[in-house]
Amino acid sequence: MNKGRLIAFNGPGTNLEIRSETLGELDPASVLVKNLVTTICGSDLHTFTGVRKEPCPVVLGHEIVGTIVEIGSQHSGRDYSGEKLEPGDLVTWTIFSSDPSSQLAKEGIPQKGADLFKYGHAQLTEKEQFHGGLSEFCVLKPGTGILKLPKELPLELAATVNCAVSTAAGAVRLSGNPKGKRVLIFGAGMLGITCAAMCRDAGAKWVGMVDVSSERLNRALKFGVDAIFESGNRSVALLAELAKTSSGKGMDRVFDMSGAPEAMEVGLGALGIGGVAVWVGAVFATRNVQVNPENLIRKLITIRGLHNYNYEDFVYGLDFMRRNWQRFPFVSVVEKTFDFEQAEEAFAYALAHKPLRVAIRIHPTI
Amino acid sequence: MNKGRLIAFNGPGTNLEIRSETLGELDPASVLVKNLVTTICGSDLHTFTGVRKEPCPVVLGHEIVGTIVEIGSQHSGRDYSGEKLEPGDLVTWTIFSSDPSSQLAKEGIPQKGADLFKYGHAQLTEKEQFHGGLSEFCVLKPGTGILKLPKELPLELAATVNCAVSTAAGAVRLSGNPKGKRVLIFGAGMLGITCAAMCRDAGAKWVGMVDVSSERLNRALKFGVDAIFESGNRSVALLAELAKTSSGKGMDRVFDMSGAPEAMEVGLGALGIGGVAVWVGAVFATRNVQVNPENLIRKLITIRGLHNYNYEDFVYGLDFMRRNWQRFPFVSVVEKTFDFEQAEEAFAYALAHKPLRVAIRIHPTI
Repeated sequence: MNKGRLIAFNGPGTNLEIRSETLGELDPASVLVKNLVTTICGSDLHTFTGVRKEPCPVVLGHEIVGTIVEIGSQHSGRDYSGEKLEPGDLVTWTIFSSDPSSQLAKEGIPQKGADLFKYGHAQLTEKEQFHGGLSEFCVLKPGTGILKLPKELPLELAATVNCAVSTAAGAVRLSGNPKGKRVLIFGAGMLGITCAAMCRDAGAKWVGMVDVSSERLNRALKFGVDAIFESGNRSVALLAELAKTSSGKGMDRVFDMSGAPEAMEVGLGALGIGGVAVWVGAVFATRNVQVNPENLIRKLITIRGLHNYNYEDFVYGLDFMRRNWQRFPFVSVVEKTFDFEQAEEAFAYALAHKPLRVAIRIHPTI
Repeated sequence: MNKGRLIAFNGPGTNLEIRSETLGELDPASVLVKNLVTTICGSDLHTFTGVRKEPCPVVLGHEIVGTIVEIGSQHSGRDYSGEKLEPGDLVTWTIFSSDPSSQLAKEGIPQKGADLFKYGHAQLTEKEQFHGGLSEFCVLKPGTGILKLPKELPLELAATVNCAVSTAAGAVRLSGNPKGKRVLIFGAGMLGITCAAMCRDAGAKWVGMVDVSSERLNRALKFGVDAIFESGNRSVALLAELAKTSSGKGMDRVFDMSGAPEAMEVGLGALGIGGVAVWVGAVFATRNVQVNPENLIRKLITIRGLHNYNYEDFVYGLDFMRRNWQRFPFVSVVEKTFDFEQAEEAFAYALAHKPLRVAIRIHPTI
């Protein structure tokens, strides 16, 4: 097994290029995985269209599941939960690897730790090409959190744990325990509906969802959402409606998965005393958010930014999905599956139809 | 002891009025205290000059110490730390009382709990007049945190525990443990220097202070501050200087005690990954703070607003002062002491000379 195919992205406006590259000798601290399924995340689409810049050529795709081919001699041979790993095991892994002994890792932010590497985001080099989802193989570097997959979990769904699901888990962790809380989520995409389902699963008292799309909102109702609010430019009316909903007390938690400054502003206005806003969506340049400091201070409001997630969120994300993939219709989020050779069509479909996810089968599975 | 004098504030631009009022029968769940010393807080000055509105007439002053006169028959007879209270005991107490069984109190925000009452902020009524610092007596309602004072602590200094010191304690709590952290504080007033001394006491690695006044900055150097930065309108130059100071890593914690939007913005810009900003100063209307959401998200930054403090902060504040009032020159913060009859002069002096604190002796002490 000396060769493997990968799909190189050479920049916005160019065609995806299938290349065949040589798999070098495995680094003894790493693990070699044969990729099975990769789902296309919103950030892949942003890079594909040029809204977001990554160094090219790059192998896109970071929501990946695969089977273990080889475990380096210096690897612990255990997954992040301590379970023994064997060739043939089905696994998924964190979007990043980093040095677990670095200061930020110790403070619970390994996704920004020293020696950070992100799958599906790194430029191809002479030495390393197999580090993305749209590739037949992936080399998992030391400091990657690996988890064995529960056999019953559909692969397409398991792939989303690596990014959207664990990021939603991180957002819920940062917000504090949702039990008994009034929660409002802006943005009914994959992050938003997963966040809603997680808050519901964790005992939230009320979960509201705001989005510009009535179609997305209606689907959100199946993911633990109690009430939906179609926005537009009517922030003031929306605030009034929300205040009525919470008997004037305001929200305990708001999540912004939309990235829209207006949404973050309406969210802050909707929070009650001691409320927490978690901002996740705006991983691209936007106008500034207007924050009224007197309101923030007198209401003891907290705003927390989250980018990616940590190992704990990843473990929680997979466990949440194992427990809830049948309670909420998560299987419906992957609307279409394409073959490896159809990657170009998969991106075109995702951009044209805006499904929550499309999946790409890397190796045929039985 | 049926009569007591108090100083009524009837609104900005009017003279303070000394009145003699009748002390009614003590509510059985309350405690009657003879006020000894009250210090004038910045917010008293804001009310006095009209920057801030309170319902008038009001007895100003909430940084108070006194001795217990009578303990109601239904009061536990213990202070917040469980120590037995006796008439004659020297005490201070929280700026607020509220229902400890209310939801917000249970969530650690009793200062916004049900049945909230704030000493030195309430309108005089036919029924209740003795609930401020500039008064010979104060009736402590149920849900007030009372603490016996260590005998060695100067009374003028102990008075500041009730507001500034405990608020600084709350800010440090919200920021997370300062041990080993790079801390930057905006505003070298009573809150700022207390916050600096607390961070130093708790093991901060580096403490910087920003202010517009070189005089205040020089004094701050005696309160655990390592480096001072005179601001003005040179935010960009300041940021560059700060980045150099932290070897480009950015600050771990920033505190805004100034209330200036520019300061809050420079502070956010100075934070490194995982950094926390605590905003305390802006308890009045200001322009909005411009927050770049992408920066907040990618750096996993947290912003937390704080107004007043909780019981835990109050206990910490007094203990901090007991341990540190000689290590840092806190005695110098009360620059002048006036008699009860000189309250008008005390306010005029505070406004003209901007000392950190002036004190008013309510009852002569031996």
